[in-house]
Amino acid sequence: MTNFNLENNRIAILGASGYGGIQLVRLLKDHPHFKITYLGGERSSGKKWNELFPFLQLDHDPIIQYPDINLIHQKADYVFLSLPNGISSQITPKLLDKNIKVIDLSADYRYRNIEEWKNIYINESKLYKRNDKDLCKEAIYGIPELNLDNISKARLVSSPGCFPTASLLGLIPFLKQGLIESDGLIIDAKSGTSGGGRSPKENLLLAECSEAISPYGVIGHRHTSEIEQIATEIAGHQIAIQFTPHLVPMVRGILATIYSRLRDPGLTAEDCRTLLDSFYREESFIEVLPVGVYPSTKWVRHTNKALLSVQVDKRTGRLVLMCVIDNLLKGQAGQAIQNLNIMAGLEQTNGLPLQCFYP
Amino acid sequence: MTNFNLENNRIAILGASGYGGIQLVRLLKDHPHFKITYLGGERSSGKKWNELFPFLQLDHDPIIQYPDINLIHQKADYVFLSLPNGISSQITPKLLDKNIKVIDLSADYRYRNIEEWKNIYINESKLYKRNDKDLCKEAIYGIPELNLDNISKARLVSSPGCFPTASLLGLIPFLKQGLIESDGLIIDAKSGTSGGGRSPKENLLLAECSEAISPYGVIGHRHTSEIEQIATEIAGHQIAIQFTPHLVPMVRGILATIYSRLRDPGLTAEDCRTLLDSFYREESFIEVLPVGVYPSTKWVRHTNKALLSVQVDKRTGRLVLMCVIDNLLKGQAGQAIQNLNIMAGLEQTNGLPLQCFYP
Amino acid sequence: MTNFNLENNRIAILGASGYGGIQLVRLLKDHPHFKITYLGGERSSGKKWNELFPFLQLDHDPIIQYPDINLIHQKADYVFLSLPNGISSQITPKLLDKNIKVIDLSADYRYRNIEEWKNIYINESKLYKRNDKDLCKEAIYGIPELNLDNISKARLVSSPGCFPTASLLGLIPFLKQGLIESDGLIIDAKSGTSGGGRSPKENLLLAECSEAISPYGVIGHRHTSEIEQIATEIAGHQIAIQFTPHLVPMVRGILATIYSRLRDPGLTAEDCRTLLDSFYREESFIEVLPVGVYPSTKWVRHTNKALLSVQVDKRTGRLVLMCVIDNLLKGQAGQAIQNLNIMAGLEQTNGLPLQCFYP
Amino acid sequence: MTNFNLENNRIAILGASGYGGIQLVRLLKDHPHFKITYLGGERSSGKKWNELFPFLQLDHDPIIQYPDINLIHQKADYVFLSLPNGISSQITPKLLDKNIKVIDLSADYRYRNIEEWKNIYINESKLYKRNDKDLCKEAIYGIPELNLDNISKARLVSSPGCFPTASLLGLIPFLKQGLIESDGLIIDAKSGTSGGGRSPKENLLLAECSEAISPYGVIGHRHTSEIEQIATEIAGHQIAIQFTPHLVPMVRGILATIYSRLRDPGLTAEDCRTLLDSFYREESFIEVLPVGVYPSTKWVRHTNKALLSVQVDKRTGRLVLMCVIDNLLKGQAGQAIQNLNIMAGLEQTNGLPLQCFYP
Repeated sequence: MTNFNLENNRIAILGASGYGGIQLVRLLKDHPHFKITYLGGERSSGKKWNELFPFLQLDHDPIIQYPDINLIHQKADYVFLSLPNGISSQITPKLLDKNIKVIDLSADYRYRNIEEWKNIYINESKLYKRNDKDLCKEAIYGIPELNLDNISKARLVSSPGCFPTASLLGLIPFLKQGLIESDGLIIDAKSGTSGGGRSPKENLLLAECSEAISPYGVIGHRHTSEIEQIATEIAGHQIAIQFTPHLVPMVRGILATIYSRLRDPGLTAEDCRTLLDSFYREESFIEVLPVGVYPSTKWVRHTNKALLSVQVDKRTGRLVLMCVIDNLLKGQAGQAIQNLNIMAGLEQTNGLPLQCFYP
Repeated sequence: MTNFNLENNRIAILGASGYGGIQLVRLLKDHPHFKITYLGGERSSGKKWNELFPFLQLDHDPIIQYPDINLIHQKADYVFLSLPNGISSQITPKLLDKNIKVIDLSADYRYRNIEEWKNIYINESKLYKRNDKDLCKEAIYGIPELNLDNISKARLVSSPGCFPTASLLGLIPFLKQGLIESDGLIIDAKSGTSGGGRSPKENLLLAECSEAISPYGVIGHRHTSEIEQIATEIAGHQIAIQFTPHLVPMVRGILATIYSRLRDPGLTAEDCRTLLDSFYREESFIEVLPVGVYPSTKWVRHTNKALLSVQVDKRTGRLVLMCVIDNLLKGQAGQAIQNLNIMAGLEQTNGLPLQCFYP
Repeated sequence: MTNFNLENNRIAILGASGYGGIQLVRLLKDHPHFKITYLGGERSSGKKWNELFPFLQLDHDPIIQYPDINLIHQKADYVFLSLPNGISSQITPKLLDKNIKVIDLSADYRYRNIEEWKNIYINESKLYKRNDKDLCKEAIYGIPELNLDNISKARLVSSPGCFPTASLLGLIPFLKQGLIESDGLIIDAKSGTSGGGRSPKENLLLAECSEAISPYGVIGHRHTSEIEQIATEIAGHQIAIQFTPHLVPMVRGILATIYSRLRDPGLTAEDCRTLLDSFYREESFIEVLPVGVYPSTKWVRHTNKALLSVQVDKRTGRLVLMCVIDNLLKGQAGQAIQNLNIMAGLEQTNGLPLQCFYP
Repeated sequence: MTNFNLENNRIAILGASGYGGIQLVRLLKDHPHFKITYLGGERSSGKKWNELFPFLQLDHDPIIQYPDINLIHQKADYVFLSLPNGISSQITPKLLDKNIKVIDLSADYRYRNIEEWKNIYINESKLYKRNDKDLCKEAIYGIPELNLDNISKARLVSSPGCFPTASLLGLIPFLKQGLIESDGLIIDAKSGTSGGGRSPKENLLLAECSEAISPYGVIGHRHTSEIEQIATEIAGHQIAIQFTPHLVPMVRGILATIYSRLRDPGLTAEDCRTLLDSFYREESFIEVLPVGVYPSTKWVRHTNKALLSVQVDKRTGRLVLMCVIDNLLKGQAGQAIQNLNIMAGLEQTNGLPLQCFYP
């Protein structure tokens, strides 16, 4: 709080009426150091916020604006981009030119190599012409537990989403210390339906997804390559991942169950727990459960926390890592605010909930 | 229907008021060839069925009896035992002595070697003294798609539960044909809460498990050894399995997502689908989905079917098998009725639903 | 079954890929006397049924057709119209001209007076010009428990939806016998979200409506006037109703809790139960619960039944009626098939499930 | 905050491991002015809090104590009693004798007349002998929006539960001003399953109550007389209520839909909204929605707020009031903390959440 500068506390949110946007508004409404000065959107532009969101009333009842760079320039020091993939790449260069710092929640700056982005986001790359390969290199991948220093100095942070965050938080300590084999990594991930966004889709109707669980995107889901890119950087050698997402009949939450093989067969679950605990000792948002206690997504709901648990099967030599987060907070808007806090030189925990309500 | 014998169509159900029992009553109520002549239970003995179950009225409103072997002998040709583990081993020998055929839904006869049962079901083995090791050897493991002939001649069928059934139906064809590596098998299973039974437990309350997913029994879950025993028999060599169950906020359904490595890296998903399809061609309850279509548990709810889907990741050489069943039907009572049909010389599909209601 | 005529068993369904259509296909697939010969739709025309519905495979994998009257004429004896309001009025006259019998699931023929329809369905009446006021008078309101004889002779049945069916089944016996006061009727209705249809809408997403209950359309919901029209006809004098629907976080089911005042304060709950029971004695789909047993929507899920329960509060002189149905079966497609059975001279219960699966 | 006294900030909670207790711990953990110094319980006594509640870790990992008055006396200034009905009456007199202030969440002090309590809580009155009729008269019914001054001076507050709170918050302004008829009041209430508590019961299992809505306690539910007592006091003449609770498949939340008749048929919905708004203008926890906006329980989840909406049906002369609260906060523990704040001379909003997370 020491180096907080009142003159740089104005926040713009583009894509304010999606689930990511709503979380950002919710968190910033109670944030001790920032104020929302601009709300932008396409579908909802021209509408009054308080009419659209009777459950999240804002003072002065702002009108959602059709995005305008000059107006944003006048109004904001930081911009959150919570927009469909591809659009961010059209806006971000202009914002940076005006010295506005950007926290992007889309996938546009998650790959250092723009060609890889184009391979994965084929349709988006056809719709949006990009000339910002340098920005792709410059952008910092916004997992603070991984990139704290770089985030603090960044003008563009690419804040990752729920699947990569939940997967990587479990893997980072083991990859960094070379404790697991580089092949054979399996991430079986389970997500609540809010991860699919707020735009109406048939498969996300309660009538469709209630009382049902199913896998999707079984081979080649977009997040596979993103996780592999970061895991490879951390490990220092190529990591290949088997990633399978599943849709779970609940609103919020992600559980990643991660299977890998230990290089050293002598390591016990307690050893691995100690290792995790030491690694994350300074981190306010990461908690490691005792061996034998397995996390529920409900334990982190509406918080910015990640709960980790670890087991070792001596029979198979396998490490089983479990990580739960709230997909819309630590997996989206909460992490974005965490990045904002860091960029602004504040304590990371400012304005971020740490404690769930149960049940 | 040809060799159906009216004189052997009388059915007793012990443990009638649990979820397994309710399904058996429901299915037999509409079965064209059998009639329920005896309902037994402990907690509910002395009570009228129709008062306990206003949604499942039976003619003549039977009273649930405290189990009595002599009375069962007078009344029934076949007995379903849907009782807590351990109790079945005390009753089954007496029933067989009286020439009553037994379909046991507990774990008591799932291991050929009684010592293995004692190792896994430690508490039960302390409560119940067993002298029936020969029966353990005699009992047929009741997956009809695996053991059809033996079931047809058996006097004691041990009808397996939801996790082993969902797991093995996916694996059997690949294990039989030696197509997958014998180590590295991972089964990430997801179950609805009815799998935990009808006896009230805090962790199964809606308030606890709604809006939440969590793993449980991460290392050493009881079903691991059961699946390994059968998989090893099928493969002809030792198979070790990593099995992780998860509790999903829904009533019914199991999804097993199964990861293994193909011996032949040239096999495609289409190859594997063809193989599955050929293997199960004659089976009424198994359906293989087109490559790229992933099953939802809702698609088999209230049916005795298993839906399979298969993918191959060329990058990792890995086979991903997905199997969904209704945990209370193909994973419990439906499979038990399927076994009954076979033991009685009837078509397997008699009285068993094949088509879900959607949504 | 006696007067069943094989030459008149061909069924067309228009609007096959909505929830109403899917139920009709599901029920007719197993119906002993009818076969589906034509599937029509707009959004889904040109697509193969089995690709769209892997969980409901049809023989010969029919293609969904863009509706064509001449083709339907060649192919079908009966047509189910499961279309948005207004469209049915454009098609029905042409179908009747070709001697095809019509069962309409929309609201187009639910009002005897076309002007009333126009007042209630204002937007639809602007989109679709109607010249079929005689058909409005001719159409039979398809609650078989109310209009059996007329349905059996009809060429056009307007099969009502879930709210009016659940409300009226409770009220009919009391209105007919003049036992309740004509004002002060309150219907507090609770519906699963499938009642809102399969077209994606934001408010029906699981993320929005899970873990939430809310009222909607509190004053002047469209079904108020429909229920009032029928209730008034039955009572023989004007009935005004307070109707409040609520959206419940579940897929299927409707519960109507109905409050009225008894004219005779001496009537007990048992009296009222006896009355209901006698009134519906011959009805296969109506069951009256013992006094003190309250129905759950789960008890009728996936069936064509209605469960009724009744209480009397001596302190307030008030009758509390409770009625549960499956909104997509007795409240939609099941009732439509019931009407079809009657029109074809068959037993009403043909092809209609009577028994739920629990839980 | 002005008259806050550091020496009176020690809190004991008896019944800490039920849902009410967990909420109290959760709220007090973050409360700026109080600290938990004693946790008591029966079932859970002797256990460490942090082992039982890995999702709600407390500093110093307290052990749950078997309740001991002398120890509580040493440790606490205020006691919350979140115990089964009847037990509180045995403990409260002893606590008051030691000058400990009591906030009771049970029903023991909700009736001014102890005989009425005995009539309603028959079984409890047999188990627990009571000699505290004066305390029944002294206890203040803890709805702060109704009894602010009395609460601020009380040593014993009976903090009411979810159904009476949701019902009365809607009715109070209309009853006080004599705007509605004294008979004909109907409260159709809908509750999440956490209202049934944390002790395992079959009917609260997810497998039982998911995908289902049902009424219960249709005539003579215990809360009827409690609501009537308070409503009668407010109105100044006898009020009779028809109260019907329903169990909704969700964890938290209560919706009361309240039907009554306006004395003055000229009042519009806008008039009634204005009236509500004026009445509650100073209240931090009450918000009145615009006419035509209907509340969802999700909008108040995890907050201490009540949202009200009102409609008037000119055709029937009827007022429809809707009120939503979180049953475990404004309907239980949140309201109890609100009472504590008032008793301690603090701002009511201290430590109480006002803003939901959506979705």
